[in-house]
Amino acid sequence: MPRTTTARSDAIAAAADLFRRQGYAATGLETILAASGAPKGSFYHHFPGGKEDLATEAIRYSGDRVADRIRYAAAATSTPGELVTAVAAAQAAELRDSAYACGCPVATIALERAGQSEVVAQAADKAFRAWAAPLASRLRETERSEQDADRLARWAVANLEGALLLARAAHDATIITDAAALTAAVLDRPAELPNPTRAAADLV
Amino acid sequence: MPRTTTARSDAIAAAADLFRRQGYAATGLETILAASGAPKGSFYHHFPGGKEDLATEAIRYSGDRVADRIRYAAAATSTPGELVTAVAAAQAAELRDSAYACGCPVATIALERAGQSEVVAQAADKAFRAWAAPLASRLRETERSEQDADRLARWAVANLEGALLLARAAHDATIITDAAALTAAVLDRPAELPNPTRAAADLV
Repeated sequence: MPRTTTARSDAIAAAADLFRRQGYAATGLETILAASGAPKGSFYHHFPGGKEDLATEAIRYSGDRVADRIRYAAAATSTPGELVTAVAAAQAAELRDSAYACGCPVATIALERAGQSEVVAQAADKAFRAWAAPLASRLRETERSEQDADRLARWAVANLEGALLLARAAHDATIITDAAALTAAVLDRPAELPNPTRAAADLV
Repeated sequence: MPRTTTARSDAIAAAADLFRRQGYAATGLETILAASGAPKGSFYHHFPGGKEDLATEAIRYSGDRVADRIRYAAAATSTPGELVTAVAAAQAAELRDSAYACGCPVATIALERAGQSEVVAQAADKAFRAWAAPLASRLRETERSEQDADRLARWAVANLEGALLLARAAHDATIITDAAALTAAVLDRPAELPNPTRAAADLV
């Protein structure tokens, strides 16, 4: 039986993996406890808010792990485009090697719960921002303004998220690497960006 | 009580809306029947495969509706970039007007079920392809090759999907319109695309 200090983190890791593969609502507490080996009695001690707490913690856990990987890739690459290409190649390989079971560990639960839980929406938003941050830093090293760097980094994260979704449905990981090639070309080609104020004004 | 011919389509429409807002697994049959007004007795007559049938039909229903809208937008715009901008503006308005409840009607259920159901994955893949088709047609009218038109159209659909996800988590619809502005600029600027073969080879 795991010690108390690891029971909580084991449950979070097991939940994150299950939520990623089969979604949040479809995954019962019993399944999570069985996968983590944590005793049922201590569950509400570790997660007073029940399964909803676990949702938030799973997003934080996955968000941090992906952010670590992106920082690692940033240290191993030179340009913003190379960083996006490296992250995409790793995502594509993970998706393919898992027989298309392991897509984004945050997207599914975020889409399932964002409409019902403000805490889950905020945790997902925080994860997406953390993933964009290393890319934004790299973009600021080019001749981009801080605002353009932030815009492009968020756009690149969105592009990868969407490509992961399409690749999972199509069972075709090259959708991710090909999308990344197109996005990377934009990031590494200095060009004037369209005005964000005009884009936002289209909403009015 | 609805007639038999409308009971099936009413149930599909009600299910599609509920799946979009709160996900597939979280939505019970009772809730769908209550929302559609369909009698419970006829449910398995209309959907012999049960809720899984409804998942596939809901994706088809939503996929067709979105494809209709994209074709409508294609008829009202001139360039590929204008088409993407118009579609994104409509998606952003719908998301904002629904208090961030109504994102993509296919993404949530696709991510929840693609790993478990090949039929659901195929239905989602078909929907994404149908959404890319009008844009690919428009891109072929420029000087793009057929292959480049298809690649760019799929990339643009992925970009919009990812932006919808990030916008839903952040409760910020300008993420969609701003992402579309960046994507549209690429589509309307003739430029050599990176080699897709090289991108796919990164996987090996």
